Amino acid sequence: MAIQAPSIPKGTRDFGPKEVNRRNYIFNTIREVFRQYGFEPIETPAMENLSTLLGKYGEEGDKLLFRVLNSGDFMGDIPAELLQNKDSLQLSNNISEKGLRYDLTVPFARYVVQHFNELVFPFKRYQMQPVWRADRPQKGRYREFYQCDADVIGSDSLRNEAELVMMISEVFASLQLKVLVKLNNRKILSGIAEMIDASDKIIPFTVAIDKIDKIGIDKVNEELSLAGIAVDAIRKLQPILTAHGTNTEKLDMIGAALAGSEIGMTGIAEMKELLDYLSHLPLTCSLEIDLSLARGLEYYTGTIIEVKSLDAQIGSICGGGRYDNLTGIFGLKGVSGVGISFGADRIYDVLLQTEKFPPSAMTGTQVLFVNFGKEEANCCQEHAAQLRKNGIRAEVYPDTTKMKKQLDYANKKGIPYVALVGEEEMKNGFVTLKNMSTGDQNRTTAAELAGMFKS
Amino acid sequence: MAIQAPSIPKGTRDFGPKEVNRRNYIFNTIREVFRQYGFEPIETPAMENLSTLLGKYGEEGDKLLFRVLNSGDFMGDIPAELLQNKDSLQLSNNISEKGLRYDLTVPFARYVVQHFNELVFPFKRYQMQPVWRADRPQKGRYREFYQCDADVIGSDSLRNEAELVMMISEVFASLQLKVLVKLNNRKILSGIAEMIDASDKIIPFTVAIDKIDKIGIDKVNEELSLAGIAVDAIRKLQPILTAHGTNTEKLDMIGAALAGSEIGMTGIAEMKELLDYLSHLPLTCSLEIDLSLARGLEYYTGTIIEVKSLDAQIGSICGGGRYDNLTGIFGLKGVSGVGISFGADRIYDVLLQTEKFPPSAMTGTQVLFVNFGKEEANCCQEHAAQLRKNGIRAEVYPDTTKMKKQLDYANKKGIPYVALVGEEEMKNGFVTLKNMSTGDQNRTTAAELAGMFKS
Repeated sequence: MAIQAPSIPKGTRDFGPKEVNRRNYIFNTIREVFRQYGFEPIETPAMENLSTLLGKYGEEGDKLLFRVLNSGDFMGDIPAELLQNKDSLQLSNNISEKGLRYDLTVPFARYVVQHFNELVFPFKRYQMQPVWRADRPQKGRYREFYQCDADVIGSDSLRNEAELVMMISEVFASLQLKVLVKLNNRKILSGIAEMIDASDKIIPFTVAIDKIDKIGIDKVNEELSLAGIAVDAIRKLQPILTAHGTNTEKLDMIGAALAGSEIGMTGIAEMKELLDYLSHLPLTCSLEIDLSLARGLEYYTGTIIEVKSLDAQIGSICGGGRYDNLTGIFGLKGVSGVGISFGADRIYDVLLQTEKFPPSAMTGTQVLFVNFGKEEANCCQEHAAQLRKNGIRAEVYPDTTKMKKQLDYANKKGIPYVALVGEEEMKNGFVTLKNMSTGDQNRTTAAELAGMFKS
Repeated sequence: MAIQAPSIPKGTRDFGPKEVNRRNYIFNTIREVFRQYGFEPIETPAMENLSTLLGKYGEEGDKLLFRVLNSGDFMGDIPAELLQNKDSLQLSNNISEKGLRYDLTVPFARYVVQHFNELVFPFKRYQMQPVWRADRPQKGRYREFYQCDADVIGSDSLRNEAELVMMISEVFASLQLKVLVKLNNRKILSGIAEMIDASDKIIPFTVAIDKIDKIGIDKVNEELSLAGIAVDAIRKLQPILTAHGTNTEKLDMIGAALAGSEIGMTGIAEMKELLDYLSHLPLTCSLEIDLSLARGLEYYTGTIIEVKSLDAQIGSICGGGRYDNLTGIFGLKGVSGVGISFGADRIYDVLLQTEKFPPSAMTGTQVLFVNFGKEEANCCQEHAAQLRKNGIRAEVYPDTTKMKKQLDYANKKGIPYVALVGEEEMKNGFVTLKNMSTGDQNRTTAAELAGMFKS
C-alpha cells in the first residue's frame, strides 16, 4: 500500500524551532508588560459549549465556528425527518454541543460570570491562547492563530484606558517597532450621528472621512451626499471634517460643532480626560485622534483604540476599546470593561520584514562537544553538566562518528562554538574551543570554560 | 428569557491566575532543562487530518478522538443509505476530516516525515502543548491536558537515553521533588518471552513480578502457572524473579538466566552501557531496574523509563523509552527515536500536596498605589512608571474610592506593599510604603523607592 505524504489541515501551520523561538520572543515581551501593570493570567478550555459561543459573533461568525462532533453514538436519537432534510446547520446543532474558541473575549465574559464570586474587582486579566476560525485561508489569515488580550473589568475610570495605551507604547518600544496609536470614542461618533440625524450613516461617514487626505474635502462631501446625508447635515459636519492641528485643537473644533449633543460632549470630555492622563505618562509612541476609527462599532461604547505600524504597510497590529455590556450576554449586567488585543501574527511579519528580531530571540545550543569515542564522550558529558550548571546550553554529540558530520550538525543548528576533547585534552584537563564563525581555536582549562561563555 | 448560568464542557478546566502561574512554574522549569540540553521547540496545529490520527492509537484510541465537523454544507453529498443506517462511526468519517491532537507523538512523527529535508539530525525537539481525549472524566483525568515531550530522533546511541535520564533528574531536582527512575528494556522482556516460549505471556509475567514484594515468590509462581506458563519455564524464571541487590548484581543474575537468548543478552548489554554512561553523570535521583515495567509494550523497542514520585502516592509522573519505528507509520522506515514525556497535571498535584510551589512561582503585583484623587493619582502614575522601568510590577488603583476598598483589593490580590501618596507626600516628593503583612509604614523618597524593592 502506498502511503500518502502526510499533511496538515489547510489554514493551519507547523512552527519549527526558529519560528517558535521568535514567536515566544513576541509573547514574552507582551506578557512581561502585562505583568508589570498588574494583569494576571487566566486560561480557558479550547472547547466551549456551543451555547456559550453561538449568537455572539453574528450570523457570519456562527458559520465560522469549528464544531466538535459529539462522542459515541451521536446518531442514535436523531429523528429520521431531520436526516432526510439534509439540513447541515440544523443537523449540526443536533450532533455537536461543543465548538472551538473563536476569540478570547467571549470565553473571558463567560469566565467572569461563572467565577464572579472568586474574582477581585477591578479584575485585570491577560490571556494568550490560540483561537480557531473556519475562515477562508489566505495570505496572513489562518484558521488557528494566537490572540494576546488584556482587559480590565469592573472599573469605569479612564485611567484604565491610559494604562492600556501606556502598555501598547511599552510593548512596541520593547520590540523596537514604531507605531501610531489612533484614538476615537464611540460617544463622539454617536454625537455626530445625532447631528446628521442618522445612526445608520455613521459607517459611510467614517469611510468618507478616512479619505479626506487622498481625495479632498469636496469629493468627501459628494460621497456623503450620495450616502444620503442631507445638505444641511453635511454643512454642519464641515468643522469636524476639516478639524486639524494638535489633538487638543482638533477636539476644540469638534467640540464646538457637537455643542448641541449631550452624548457627543461626553465623548469629547472623555477624550480630553484620557489625553490629560496620558500627558503625565512617558509615552514613546504618537497619539492621533482619528474619527474614521469605528472598529467593532456594535461592541464598543466608549474609547476605541487602534495601532498602526509605521515600519510596514500592514493592517492594524493591536486594537481595543471600552465596552459596557460584555457580560450582559451571560446575564450579568452593568459591568463595564476595557481591553486591548495584540495581533501576534502581524507583529511577527513586521519584525521579520524589518529584520528586528534580536539575536537573543534565538535561544539555541551555545556549545557542542564533539564525540571522539567512549572515554572522550564520558569526559565531555561531565564538562557539559558543569556548563549547564552555569546556565550554558550545551550538547554532546550522541554518536561517535566522522568529525565533519558533527561539525555540519553544529553549523546547521547555528551552534556558535564547538568543544574538542581528545586524548591530549583529557590527559591535561583541557578543552579546545573552536569559534565556528571565525574558525579560531583556543585551549582552556575545564575550570575556566564556563567563564568564557559568560564574558 | 432566563439566561442559564454558563458552564464549560465536562472534563475541561478554567485556570485562574494562581493556577496559571503555578502551571507556568512547572512548564518553565521543564522548558529550561530541555533547552540546557540543546532541545529545540516545535509546535503543531491543534487540529490534524483524521488520516494522520486514525489507526495510530488502537481501536479504543480512535473512539477517543475529538472529531471536528466539516464546515459549510457537509450533508450535501452524504448518500441517503448512510443516513438511514444511523451508523455514527461510518457517518462521522463522512462528515469530519479533522480531529483534535490526541498526543504529541503522532503529530511529531508526522512533522518529521513532512519536514524531513529541513531538519538537522539527530533532531532533538521538545513540544509542550495541550492534547484532547474524549475519555470518561474522573479525578485527575481530564479531556484537555498538557503534555511536555522531549525526543531525539535519528540517533541509536544510548547516550541519548542517558541524557534524558539526566534531564529527568534535573527537572525534579529543580522542582524539589524526590523521584525514583525505573528502567527496563524491551529486549530483556523479549528474551524472557523466548525463555518461557510465549511473547503473549509477557504481560502476566510483568504483572506477577510486580507483586513479589507484596505476595511472595510462591504466590507469584502460582499466578504464573495459572497464566499458562509451563512448569519448566517457571523454574527457569526463578533467578530472574528473585534477582536482588544492586542494579549490577541484578543484571548479572538476569544475564546468567538469559544466556541462551540473543535478544535478551542485547538488552542486558544495552542496560549495562546505559548504567555506565549514567555513572559519569551527577544524577540526584535513584535508579532501579524494574522488570515489571512494560508501559507501551507495543511501541517501545529498547529502553523503557518510568518515574515515580517518592513524595506522594500517585501514578507515574514521567515516562518514555526508545522506539524504532515511529515514523514508519508515515512511510519513513529505519529512523530510531527515544523520548520522555512529563505529566504536568500530576506534577502539579504532587507540588500542591507537598506544598512545594515556591513563592517565586507567584509573579503578581508587588505594589499598589492608592488613588486619593486626580492630582495624586497622576503623581502615582509617574512613580509607577519609574518602578516598572526598574522591573517592579506596580499598579495604580484606577478609581478614586474609599481607602478600605483599595486596601481590600490589595489584600485579596496578595499584593505585599501599598504606596500612599497624599497631598503632603506630593509636596515633598515622598512616598509612604505600607507593608501589608506587618502594617509597618515607611516614608521614602521617590528616588529611593525602586531600591527598596530590589533589596
